[in-house]
Amino acid sequence: MNPIANFAPGPSQLYFTVEGYMRSAFREGIPSLAHRSKEFESIFRSATEGLKELLSIPAGFHVFFAASATEIWERAIQNLVQEKSFHLVNGAFSKRFYEIAKQLGKLVDKIEVPFGESFEQDVVIPQDVEMIGITHNETSTGVSLSLDFINSFRKANPNSLIVVDAVSSLPYPAFDYSKIDSLFFSVQKGFGLPAGLGVWIVNERCLAKAEKILASGKTIGTYHSLPFYLQNAKKNQTPETPNVLSIYLLAKVVEDFQRRGVNTLRKETEYKAAILYQAIESHRTLSSFVKNKNAQSKTVLVADCGEHTGVLTNELKKLGIHPGEGYGEFKKSQLRFANFPAHSKEQFELLVDSLAKI
Amino acid sequence: MNPIANFAPGPSQLYFTVEGYMRSAFREGIPSLAHRSKEFESIFRSATEGLKELLSIPAGFHVFFAASATEIWERAIQNLVQEKSFHLVNGAFSKRFYEIAKQLGKLVDKIEVPFGESFEQDVVIPQDVEMIGITHNETSTGVSLSLDFINSFRKANPNSLIVVDAVSSLPYPAFDYSKIDSLFFSVQKGFGLPAGLGVWIVNERCLAKAEKILASGKTIGTYHSLPFYLQNAKKNQTPETPNVLSIYLLAKVVEDFQRRGVNTLRKETEYKAAILYQAIESHRTLSSFVKNKNAQSKTVLVADCGEHTGVLTNELKKLGIHPGEGYGEFKKSQLRFANFPAHSKEQFELLVDSLAKI
Repeated sequence: MNPIANFAPGPSQLYFTVEGYMRSAFREGIPSLAHRSKEFESIFRSATEGLKELLSIPAGFHVFFAASATEIWERAIQNLVQEKSFHLVNGAFSKRFYEIAKQLGKLVDKIEVPFGESFEQDVVIPQDVEMIGITHNETSTGVSLSLDFINSFRKANPNSLIVVDAVSSLPYPAFDYSKIDSLFFSVQKGFGLPAGLGVWIVNERCLAKAEKILASGKTIGTYHSLPFYLQNAKKNQTPETPNVLSIYLLAKVVEDFQRRGVNTLRKETEYKAAILYQAIESHRTLSSFVKNKNAQSKTVLVADCGEHTGVLTNELKKLGIHPGEGYGEFKKSQLRFANFPAHSKEQFELLVDSLAKI
Repeated sequence: MNPIANFAPGPSQLYFTVEGYMRSAFREGIPSLAHRSKEFESIFRSATEGLKELLSIPAGFHVFFAASATEIWERAIQNLVQEKSFHLVNGAFSKRFYEIAKQLGKLVDKIEVPFGESFEQDVVIPQDVEMIGITHNETSTGVSLSLDFINSFRKANPNSLIVVDAVSSLPYPAFDYSKIDSLFFSVQKGFGLPAGLGVWIVNERCLAKAEKILASGKTIGTYHSLPFYLQNAKKNQTPETPNVLSIYLLAKVVEDFQRRGVNTLRKETEYKAAILYQAIESHRTLSSFVKNKNAQSKTVLVADCGEHTGVLTNELKKLGIHPGEGYGEFKKSQLRFANFPAHSKEQFELLVDSLAKI
């Protein structure tokens, strides 16, 4: 049932060590481990400290676990926005973040550009918004925002909390943590793990904001409010019985990533992206959906395939290569290719060679 | 690392087939499975329909997935209570449900009895409460409420939604679904699975209530609101990328339970509970924490061990038997023993024989 290479952007291909770690987990009794035990605390510490090292997250930031990035959208709005949030919308997932804020009764505003496009450098956001939601990498379109662009908001909107959705880009981007307040991702994309865990990184400004909303008499949720997260994290614990197995696997894969080195992972990501964009652009029936080269994602590459989408999919599948479908209305005219650490250079070379032959 | 028998009340011992199913899952590519695929829909259907059959859940009820029972406490209050909820509190977990309602800004009321006790039959609850929260089995104390008691509220409070926390009792109890509106549990207890999934069962009255709150302009949450759950469940899908692996394992274990037959599971539960209560009562230093025989849980048995708690724990552990610690303030004076389908008769006989010798 397992293909030779699975390029779906998530749930995506597992990192090659995961199956072995799952076996170890059963041998070590992890699936039955009490979440208030010393053993769990050690796994929690290993996952959170490992992530901080891998991603160069400075002191003053905390790492919390949720069930999904979808949950984190909701928790971020609950904990960080009393009245007003602002969203940069350029695809289905950035739009969902905006809509969740609206559903939670906030005064929401947005700047929106068409699918496949990025924003102009001079976006102006009102000074009174409490939170700015930015999707670093739009999984639906393959548009990635430049770090310079993301970093520009701190100066322009010093009073707003800057929250970055990096669901389908981490561990690739090297964020400047002095320019953002919160970052989140889910493990079934760039970390090559089974779905069922979201990771939420926040700084002290986020905690102070949640405390302030709470003090004003408003609700910030219950077990997954930032203050309660922190109270538990100080003991290397979670508020509820979490997905222990997934936290264990994350800790292990983060160790693997550290052994390979985040710079190696980044260089490999760039190499693999370069050969695939090259293959797409030189193909007689394919073209990159994202035209602006500076906005082309290194981690989710989207090809316009038009009427050839079905044929291409079938031909690739015959070779054991599973491309990701286009998102939503582009299901029948595009293919998406995830480029995560789980995807080897050999798999990308096979993909590129195969595309050239079709 | 794995003991011969793990009686911790959860995360608890795995059902004996789980490790094999986890291997099959990897072989079948489940950890990378797209949650919008036909294959996932088939797993979703198998888990939800299987649960309905196993637990004799009638038409008009829906089965939804959350990350934990803790999440379901919060979602239940959000979706089912506009102003007032009422809670029967007799331990740490029933109290937490009450506190979550308070944290969400509801007008909450409760009747509270001391740890280890049950309620009088003639509890009177105000007619205007929208939801009554009842914990069938208090994991912290080993008190189980009788089904007759639970069933009495429908007539007494016909306008209130009756929500039953059955976290540590299912699949043992045979609920009368005409007398309750919602039921929930988490999979790391009676279903013998790794933690990371909560199961929320609701009827049409719950859905109507959520729609009514939404129509009044109040928020009922976002991706895990009941209407959005239903919209996705109709397609055998979930609102977000869920813990796919856990839903797959649940479907498989439910099949196993059906093959054994729920009545067999129930009879075995009663047999194992009977021999352990007998062993506790006849032991020279042990006694049952719950004195009222009608309130003694069949699925979480709690023994007062006083100053012998440490010695007993050590002696049992030397034999490869891991008891559960007492909860909270009872950590050093009680032991808890889970009695789930994963715990074999042989393991209980070993436990009983071992206790007799200590």
